[in-house]
Amino acid sequence: MVLHVVGITLGVCGAGVLVSALVETIDGGPDVVALLASGAAITIVGTALWQGTKIPDNIALLDVFVTVTAAWVSMALAGAIPYIATGSLSSVDLAMFESVSGFTTTGATVMRPIEGNSAGILFWRSITQLLGGMGVIVLVVAVLPTVGSGGMNLLEAEAPGPTGERLTPRVRHTARNLWVLYLGFTLVLAIAYIAAGMSIYDGFAHSFTTVSTGGFSPYNASLGHFDSALIEWIAIVAMFLAGGSFAIWYRLLRGDTGPLLRSVELRLYVTLVLGAIVVVALTNDAGTTGHERIRDAAFTVNAIVSTTGFGTADFGAWSDASQAVILLLMPLGGMAGSTSGGVKMVRLLAVASYAHRETLRQLHPRLIRPVRIGGSVLDDGTANKIMAFMVLALATFGAGTIIIAMTGVDLVTAVSASATLYGNVGPGLGEVGPTNDFLNLPGLARFVGMGSMMLGRLEIYPLLLALVALQPRRVKAFVIRQRT
Amino acid sequence: MVLHVVGITLGVCGAGVLVSALVETIDGGPDVVALLASGAAITIVGTALWQGTKIPDNIALLDVFVTVTAAWVSMALAGAIPYIATGSLSSVDLAMFESVSGFTTTGATVMRPIEGNSAGILFWRSITQLLGGMGVIVLVVAVLPTVGSGGMNLLEAEAPGPTGERLTPRVRHTARNLWVLYLGFTLVLAIAYIAAGMSIYDGFAHSFTTVSTGGFSPYNASLGHFDSALIEWIAIVAMFLAGGSFAIWYRLLRGDTGPLLRSVELRLYVTLVLGAIVVVALTNDAGTTGHERIRDAAFTVNAIVSTTGFGTADFGAWSDASQAVILLLMPLGGMAGSTSGGVKMVRLLAVASYAHRETLRQLHPRLIRPVRIGGSVLDDGTANKIMAFMVLALATFGAGTIIIAMTGVDLVTAVSASATLYGNVGPGLGEVGPTNDFLNLPGLARFVGMGSMMLGRLEIYPLLLALVALQPRRVKAFVIRQRT
Repeated sequence: MVLHVVGITLGVCGAGVLVSALVETIDGGPDVVALLASGAAITIVGTALWQGTKIPDNIALLDVFVTVTAAWVSMALAGAIPYIATGSLSSVDLAMFESVSGFTTTGATVMRPIEGNSAGILFWRSITQLLGGMGVIVLVVAVLPTVGSGGMNLLEAEAPGPTGERLTPRVRHTARNLWVLYLGFTLVLAIAYIAAGMSIYDGFAHSFTTVSTGGFSPYNASLGHFDSALIEWIAIVAMFLAGGSFAIWYRLLRGDTGPLLRSVELRLYVTLVLGAIVVVALTNDAGTTGHERIRDAAFTVNAIVSTTGFGTADFGAWSDASQAVILLLMPLGGMAGSTSGGVKMVRLLAVASYAHRETLRQLHPRLIRPVRIGGSVLDDGTANKIMAFMVLALATFGAGTIIIAMTGVDLVTAVSASATLYGNVGPGLGEVGPTNDFLNLPGLARFVGMGSMMLGRLEIYPLLLALVALQPRRVKAFVIRQRT
Repeated sequence: MVLHVVGITLGVCGAGVLVSALVETIDGGPDVVALLASGAAITIVGTALWQGTKIPDNIALLDVFVTVTAAWVSMALAGAIPYIATGSLSSVDLAMFESVSGFTTTGATVMRPIEGNSAGILFWRSITQLLGGMGVIVLVVAVLPTVGSGGMNLLEAEAPGPTGERLTPRVRHTARNLWVLYLGFTLVLAIAYIAAGMSIYDGFAHSFTTVSTGGFSPYNASLGHFDSALIEWIAIVAMFLAGGSFAIWYRLLRGDTGPLLRSVELRLYVTLVLGAIVVVALTNDAGTTGHERIRDAAFTVNAIVSTTGFGTADFGAWSDASQAVILLLMPLGGMAGSTSGGVKMVRLLAVASYAHRETLRQLHPRLIRPVRIGGSVLDDGTANKIMAFMVLALATFGAGTIIIAMTGVDLVTAVSASATLYGNVGPGLGEVGPTNDFLNLPGLARFVGMGSMMLGRLEIYPLLLALVALQPRRVKAFVIRQRT
């Protein structure tokens, strides 16, 4: 089961590398052979694993988490191969960082300068974000001829947000619809970018990394390279949509405006984005005025909240007030069911409702009151899981900050690097600000950062639970005893 | 009921001011009349309120929280009067800040320079911390001839930590034993300080602010003023004890070593303190060696974890790694049942156990497993309350950081000010570091800081719930309906 899914995942990755080789061929660049060879190798290994194994009818919960973790780790390893094969990154640890940053749609980079690299390798860099955004496991579920009872669990283990939502009664159809919507959105955006003045190559490379909220760009200056207000506004709208719930957009496209109007999470998302734009526009101190000031604020806030992380203005040079707002937005992320990272709006709502209930319980200890999100009631199991998740997220962030700070970087850099990597945003503040890159961090800090990105993308539990499978017999025995 | 407790509280405060007037008389300073007048005024108002009201037999829960909040707010107001009367602080808002900082045992100061003030006013400053440390409400419960059913609730609402512990079957005796232990500890420490070379005045002034984990000192250089290794080591031991559970020390003095040996919280406290000392000693970059380096690390770590906040070395100039450790220790605090601020060790243990359970529940959704602290089981109500508390603490910290940053100070200052004030520590980093004071903050930031200190000292719920009493009828009706 594990190897089967890993095989398909690698197959998909290999295909992505081969597409990059094709792009490189069209561009006439130097990396055709390297990309072709690594793409072929990954595809062959993947296909061999896939064909050599079978998926069981019934998937145990522990296996779900092990599978998701194994697939992501092998994907990150395979994704590093093209960087090494083409020589665009000089060491294995740098290539791994770029690969993890790509698949987790973080967008933190160690390429310096970016523009020295071939079109093919930069296209592969964008493709890793496309694959990571909606999730390779979701794609696997969509293409697998049969998934057993564990299909929904697989989907939930990878999909961002506390609860998976079935768009259709069949899990496979849900996964397929999500990927179709995702690719459709990517295509429409690519056309919009190209219509606004980008080349075909740039249009696709940037739409891949916008819809996935990744934020890689083939240019050092990111989207600022184009210096086009139109392109920036297109990106603002696209980032806002990508940070919103794909389930809501799906139903909206089917003519059902109900979820759109009823969603309290959407209301919080819109309020937070607009509020942050106003505060940043008023306080950013950047010396810009009028439309440009509003656009810069709107762009940066949407880039951070949606966790895309594109840069146009150097917000690292803005006022401390604006930077404080940006820092606090970093670990939040967008809505559940979006491609964004972070803890998600819906969890903030659940946590607020939970805290409200417990406060009232001080006055009336026997009060019975469910945790609510808007009008809908959350069962206690889900509410408790969310509370525990918040604690684990905080612990991940805190531990990341300490270790990164101990490698010798300054406090603002350490805190913001930990927040931006966990939140899968991309740029931080200080040494890892929007005009810098993650080469400024020591190797150990980057290594810890890879862990943060993975924990952020997979929302902690799968990685944590996969460790159970590696653990001493006593713990495993306990888990299995409980299961039976 | 509310006015009765407020009356006694003010009476106690007034007596404290009169003691300061006595000290000023002995010292022959200029502030005798001002202190005498304000002390008399506070005492008269307090006694009038006390004698003019009666305590009911039965105290409703809502009234408990209103009472605690009202007592603390009126105490903070009354405590500011001597600063204004003697002219030692020039404005009402500065006097309020110093008063709140004193009673909450934070130890953040706006006096610049401290040494320009009279002995009497600086003694009052130390007395505010003595009163705030074990808690005036606990003192009130100890001296009240009768307390109704709400006595334990009053105690719990003020005492630091998630659950109150009865040392004896009677609430009044518990409160009395705690205060006797507290004052005994203060007296022994004062003698130790004096034996180590302090004047009688300095010995008492510093023992008041050590045992209460407050951290005010009559000297700009804090305990560094004495430049004495012996005094520093005495303070290290005293801060460590003050950050530990007074219930454990009480039982130990009675010859019962059981709680000492069994307490998992104590083990975490010791481990954290020793671990932080090692890391800080290894990384602090201060250019000191050998014994001095270890002493500086031990002093600073104990000053932060116990939330005392005394300074000897300028840790604001240490390496970023050491500063990161210090910053992360700030909101933690010591053990439940200590005089320290912050979230307390026991809550960290509960949260870890909670997160562990929820992680296992991902594998076995119907798992029944209580939250544990060491060997003892926590009921679900308490566990949920702790989780909500952590969220509220985080929200307080985050909101404080944003607002303070928006007043225009740099990020490190804003983050550390929010952490140190919420944790009732005292010094922060950057502009509010150990060699600076809180005059460096804008007025709005200090105002928000007063709220943080109060929320930190009373552990959020009492203040939050007292708001219910001020709220629209609908909420109150809901609470009252639930209560019946």
